[in-house]
Amino acid sequence: MSLKPLGDKVVIKVKDEEVKTVGGIVLPGSAQEKPQQGTVIAVGSGEIVDGKKVPLDVKVDDQVIYSKYSGSEIKIDGEEYLIIRQADILAIVE
Amino acid sequence: MSLKPLGDKVVIKVKDEEVKTVGGIVLPGSAQEKPQQGTVIAVGSGEIVDGKKVPLDVKVDDQVIYSKYSGSEIKIDGEEYLIIRQADILAIVE
Amino acid sequence: MSLKPLGDKVVIKVKDEEVKTVGGIVLPGSAQEKPQQGTVIAVGSGEIVDGKKVPLDVKVDDQVIYSKYSGSEIKIDGEEYLIIRQADILAIVE
Amino acid sequence: MSLKPLGDKVVIKVKDEEVKTVGGIVLPGSAQEKPQQGTVIAVGSGEIVDGKKVPLDVKVDDQVIYSKYSGSEIKIDGEEYLIIRQADILAIVE
Amino acid sequence: MSLKPLGDKVVIKVKDEEVKTVGGIVLPGSAQEKPQQGTVIAVGSGEIVDGKKVPLDVKVDDQVIYSKYSGSEIKIDGEEYLIIRQADILAIVE
Amino acid sequence: MSLKPLGDKVVIKVKDEEVKTVGGIVLPGSAQEKPQQGTVIAVGSGEIVDGKKVPLDVKVDDQVIYSKYSGSEIKIDGEEYLIIRQADILAIVE
Amino acid sequence: MSLKPLGDKVVIKVKDEEVKTVGGIVLPGSAQEKPQQGTVIAVGSGEIVDGKKVPLDVKVDDQVIYSKYSGSEIKIDGEEYLIIRQADILAIVE
Repeated sequence: MSLKPLGDKVVIKVKDEEVKTVGGIVLPGSAQEKPQQGTVIAVGSGEIVDGKKVPLDVKVDDQVIYSKYSGSEIKIDGEEYLIIRQADILAIVE
Repeated sequence: MSLKPLGDKVVIKVKDEEVKTVGGIVLPGSAQEKPQQGTVIAVGSGEIVDGKKVPLDVKVDDQVIYSKYSGSEIKIDGEEYLIIRQADILAIVE
Repeated sequence: MSLKPLGDKVVIKVKDEEVKTVGGIVLPGSAQEKPQQGTVIAVGSGEIVDGKKVPLDVKVDDQVIYSKYSGSEIKIDGEEYLIIRQADILAIVE
Repeated sequence: MSLKPLGDKVVIKVKDEEVKTVGGIVLPGSAQEKPQQGTVIAVGSGEIVDGKKVPLDVKVDDQVIYSKYSGSEIKIDGEEYLIIRQADILAIVE
Repeated sequence: MSLKPLGDKVVIKVKDEEVKTVGGIVLPGSAQEKPQQGTVIAVGSGEIVDGKKVPLDVKVDDQVIYSKYSGSEIKIDGEEYLIIRQADILAIVE
Repeated sequence: MSLKPLGDKVVIKVKDEEVKTVGGIVLPGSAQEKPQQGTVIAVGSGEIVDGKKVPLDVKVDDQVIYSKYSGSEIKIDGEEYLIIRQADILAIVE
Repeated sequence: MSLKPLGDKVVIKVKDEEVKTVGGIVLPGSAQEKPQQGTVIAVGSGEIVDGKKVPLDVKVDDQVIYSKYSGSEIKIDGEEYLIIRQADILAIVE
């Protein structure tokens, strides 16, 4: 199953890394502060600006940083994704 | 009886699946968290953008994921539907 | 007396049906949840979009479904009407 | 003294009718619920839409129905008026 | 010293009349409800609408009625003025 | 060090006058109500309106009156300035 | 690793200076009020205004002053950055 986001929306697989504390204890991601980085999985067909469709600036496999708490979290086949408007993506990590 | 949504609106039949718990007990949909997936039943004639009518991106029978709590729930002939603006549809499931 | 709505506004006669419970008791409309269906009585001359007047999509005698709590309720000659912007009409029932 | 409303504004003389209760007692207008009907006294020169001035749809002497609580109430020479944007007028009574 | 308001702004000298009660006691303006009438002292160069500068509709010496609580009160050389956007002026008194 | 404001922004040196009470006591500016007057120190390159850059109406050395509490206060080399959008400047004092 | 901000966004390295009190005690930056100055590290490709992409006014290495509390703070490789829309940058320090 795949997702085709609409318009200016982007599907992101949130980066969910385990983190070791100084003493070596592994903290699952949920004990950390909300992650803000992820990988673009799918992009919409573009945004309509003044009557013309403008393609999005991000593409599949881009590592992106996005605003905290933006977008909608969804769960498909047990995997969690974030669907977000491109305007809530802050930067691409290169 | 059928529904013809106006403008950029879309009628969705919400996916209302029974869910079995580990012990095999069937929980009706209402005991679950709000579903966010459904099937497009009817689409409006399009959205007016800068004076031109732009047809919608979704079509009848599309499986779609939409934002939680968006749209208006209605009941016609005992069936429940959601009427939603296309902008509140996040992605098409393929 | 008749009403001529302005611009993108529409006058609706709210459908106010009596409902029989299983035991045959008639509940007046006011004991039910807020109705969301009605008949279009009069339509405005259209909406101005980007400097051009666009005629409305609904017409007199259309059965329509509208958003809960939208519009202004008025009483003329003892009859109750709803005056609503076309954007708050969700769909036409056919 | 007369009033010349600006732009898309309209001056309305609110209809303030006495109402008799069943027993014949006359209730002054202020004991009733807020009136929503009135007569247009003066209209502005029009609304600027996309750079062009569009004349208003209402004219002097029109009986109009307007949204509850909209507009600004003013008192001139002991008379009360309502100055309201045309967009808050719902319909003309004919 | 004089004031040159910017853009769509207008300087108003608020009408501050003494009022006699029935018994002849003079109440200073501050004991009354907020005045809503004044005289235009200076007008801005106009409002930019769709890229063109549109001159204002009010002119110096116009008696105007404005929305309660709109604008900024300022004091220059001991005199109080109100600087207000033209959109907050309701009507010209003629 | 100098400041070059961006776009429609303007740097203002707030007028911070000492005030003598009737008894001759000098009150520093901070004991007074918030000043609303100042001198323009630097202006941005202009505001983009409908795709064209429109130069600002104020210029360096203008005495201006601005809305209370608007803008951002900053301190550079021990001096306090206000950076404000031109739209929050009410009038030029001449 | 580097960051490529999208659209009208700008990456800023916040100026985090140690401050000595009169007695010579060094206060780390966190004991001070929120800094508002920083250095531009990366700029987006521009802002779309009326269908045309307009390049940003700030460039890499510019010292800028920005509005308090605007933007999103992020941490990359242990370094803290601020990603901010250009509209929240008040001025360039020269």
